[in-house]
Amino acid sequence: MKYNKFLILFFLFFIDLTGQEEKKIHSNIREIYDISLVDGKSYNWLEHLSNNIGGRLSGSLNAERAILWAKEELENLGLDSVWLQPVMVPKWVRGNFEYANIETSPGNTINVPICALGGSIATPLSGIRAEVVEVKNFDDLKLLGKEKVAGKIVFFNRPMQADLVSTFESYSNCVDQRYDGARIASKYGALAVIVRSMNLRLDDFPHTGVMSYGDIPNKRRIPAAAISTNGAELLSSMLSLNPNLKFFIKQNCKNFPDVLSYNVIGEIKGSIKSDEIMLVGGHLDSWDLGDGAHDDGAGIVQSMEVLRIFKKNKYKLKRTLRVVLFMNEENGKRGGIKYAENAIKNYENHVLALESDAGGFSPRGFSISSNSYKFDKILSWKNFFKPYQIHYFEKGGSGADIEFLKTEDNVLIGLRPDSQRYFDYHHASTDTFEAINKRELELGAAAMATLIYLADYFQL
Amino acid sequence: MKYNKFLILFFLFFIDLTGQEEKKIHSNIREIYDISLVDGKSYNWLEHLSNNIGGRLSGSLNAERAILWAKEELENLGLDSVWLQPVMVPKWVRGNFEYANIETSPGNTINVPICALGGSIATPLSGIRAEVVEVKNFDDLKLLGKEKVAGKIVFFNRPMQADLVSTFESYSNCVDQRYDGARIASKYGALAVIVRSMNLRLDDFPHTGVMSYGDIPNKRRIPAAAISTNGAELLSSMLSLNPNLKFFIKQNCKNFPDVLSYNVIGEIKGSIKSDEIMLVGGHLDSWDLGDGAHDDGAGIVQSMEVLRIFKKNKYKLKRTLRVVLFMNEENGKRGGIKYAENAIKNYENHVLALESDAGGFSPRGFSISSNSYKFDKILSWKNFFKPYQIHYFEKGGSGADIEFLKTEDNVLIGLRPDSQRYFDYHHASTDTFEAINKRELELGAAAMATLIYLADYFQL
Repeated sequence: MKYNKFLILFFLFFIDLTGQEEKKIHSNIREIYDISLVDGKSYNWLEHLSNNIGGRLSGSLNAERAILWAKEELENLGLDSVWLQPVMVPKWVRGNFEYANIETSPGNTINVPICALGGSIATPLSGIRAEVVEVKNFDDLKLLGKEKVAGKIVFFNRPMQADLVSTFESYSNCVDQRYDGARIASKYGALAVIVRSMNLRLDDFPHTGVMSYGDIPNKRRIPAAAISTNGAELLSSMLSLNPNLKFFIKQNCKNFPDVLSYNVIGEIKGSIKSDEIMLVGGHLDSWDLGDGAHDDGAGIVQSMEVLRIFKKNKYKLKRTLRVVLFMNEENGKRGGIKYAENAIKNYENHVLALESDAGGFSPRGFSISSNSYKFDKILSWKNFFKPYQIHYFEKGGSGADIEFLKTEDNVLIGLRPDSQRYFDYHHASTDTFEAINKRELELGAAAMATLIYLADYFQL
Repeated sequence: MKYNKFLILFFLFFIDLTGQEEKKIHSNIREIYDISLVDGKSYNWLEHLSNNIGGRLSGSLNAERAILWAKEELENLGLDSVWLQPVMVPKWVRGNFEYANIETSPGNTINVPICALGGSIATPLSGIRAEVVEVKNFDDLKLLGKEKVAGKIVFFNRPMQADLVSTFESYSNCVDQRYDGARIASKYGALAVIVRSMNLRLDDFPHTGVMSYGDIPNKRRIPAAAISTNGAELLSSMLSLNPNLKFFIKQNCKNFPDVLSYNVIGEIKGSIKSDEIMLVGGHLDSWDLGDGAHDDGAGIVQSMEVLRIFKKNKYKLKRTLRVVLFMNEENGKRGGIKYAENAIKNYENHVLALESDAGGFSPRGFSISSNSYKFDKILSWKNFFKPYQIHYFEKGGSGADIEFLKTEDNVLIGLRPDSQRYFDYHHASTDTFEAINKRELELGAAAMATLIYLADYFQL
């Protein structure tokens, strides 16, 4: 009887404590959202980064300006330390012209919007004029063989799949054309490659992105450019009418030797376990056509905002919270590689890393790379996220910059915003500040801060 | 032993059947999404409705054009029947000028963007020039009293709350200023009211919307207009510097007698229970400033698409599927009222009604008004929706047009898209086709068709 009473009392106490705790957690999360939505800085930061700095390809003057700006802003937050981490990065420059047309019959031409792919060589100054062979994939190319490809321009025209709900999945299924197209087509004697833009909608904006020649010797490398989706549709239908039409392309992009650049890093020291690092980050470089507001200005300002929130609410995290603004995700990932090398060298313990690099859209949840125990622990927090409509918690990849930090025990996470609009802007001149919705951006920052808060609270 | 064997066999059979069934359901849903995303018509329909017809306020010529167009398109689908349901609707016309400025000192004026609220009377031709009293709510007005309000323009300036995740909740908390502001301010002798636009972002676009004078006699009615959020901020800061500044407004909108209009209705007869009606719909009228692409062109074309999908996939629904394109949601709800009156008169059994009237954004789920048994039944379908990132299933309101159909037994549902961007466009000149993302629109139509399919399959 006595025993039972004790048990009941214990049970009541336990329930009460849990209820109190839960309430406190809910209220701390509510405060995080309030700071981001009512008094946030991410949107103003992004306005500056996008409009006053702009596109910031690795090795460019704008990339250097972005580094200095980010360092200063982090210093203004009163973090415990802010520093630059040197890293050598590739330098590729678009040049001052890129131009293409379809010669439908001698003398009759139609201009089509193209842009050089990142890393591509230039055409000869006088351009390249040649017949076109249209393919959907590398198997098509193999079937055609050298005989039908040599001396021609290869046109890769496999569209992103509209039926997939995740546009990133469509992207993955398509991007081999862009990345490997020139390398493979050159083996068949092609003169150049034109790749349909990685874009789900039909419009007039070519989307750039990185390509690679692999180990092909310099003299056998061929120019590579993206064509807008409307341009691709036009070219394809023209080819069906006249398979012998000529395509003309010229571009004067150029590769330079590597140059010195930096990752920008800041941190708030943990109050108890300062050797356990939780990292938030994105990449500071962007492509050069737009101003990189979604890719990845959003991730940059959201990550900075996470630290600002924990300064603002005066919440003492037990672990160290570090923000890393990686350089050169787009065409080399050198920042991520260098950061991980240094982390290993210095025996740093990254218990968690969270990257935002999927656009500043309404956050849906997180893609999580961890062991099952930790994954289940994160799943147990679902109810804390429910009022904020964060519902997506799935095993999967994290982020291109942080994946080099993978260990057996740690947790790597990617923020997953709604993906429907991302490829309308990705790597194109349309990726500008105007395409950002303030609230969507701020909700993403709050979701990130909430995850960090819970991971610290429950010692994930 | 024999008995056990039988049990095991039965059990295996049962599991197998369920697995097969589940697989079939999944594959039918996949087909619905494929049709909408790969071969959909909603986007092209919306392009026509938005760009070739445009804003379609009740009683306008454009509303009549929209009715004729929708009827023809439904007829082209080969439905079992298509008809028009007559309904008398209010007619209010914006007129050919609306203009306002702030007179900061004698002779110095700054123009600010305003628009008349729907239903408002005109100002005198020469306009109204008066001092301004700024309030946040009706309590403020009461505190000021007649003495401080009479002869002035009342400026309602309570912003939408940024901290709420659901922007519709922010809207609900704010819209009393717009709807009742003139009615209440007139009791204190105000000359006119200016209402801060229901918009979460700061921009230069005034947002209209319906207002009401209640039972106030004609001669005591005062003009009401919305001011852009930037205009409201400017006016408020000017007032803090000079509380005696004058505000000038003129507008020549006008109310006319009711006119005849129509709901547009079409249906596919059920193969087994044709007397059980499942309704999908939206409202065909829109405000006049933009082209009503989100509010509610999206709901119109998504609802039409649901029927097109079930013609295309040749799936035989047991129940009757009816699409209703309601007239006059915006300023009278007469279409919804008339439809429900007729339904009762004809003993029609609406087992389910699903409205899309929250914008053509990425669908998140559904708000459900039903008894607990049916609500739980819908919850049990969550896994079928999971691959499509439909996660929101909550009890709540459905749609303004269908709510008149409520019975004890039936189920009313509102599609719930992501709400973050909705009030950037709602009732403003920014609500145009360009603000629509094709995939988001199509995903909404597919989510609606999936719900209809499951409700039919499981006889909700």
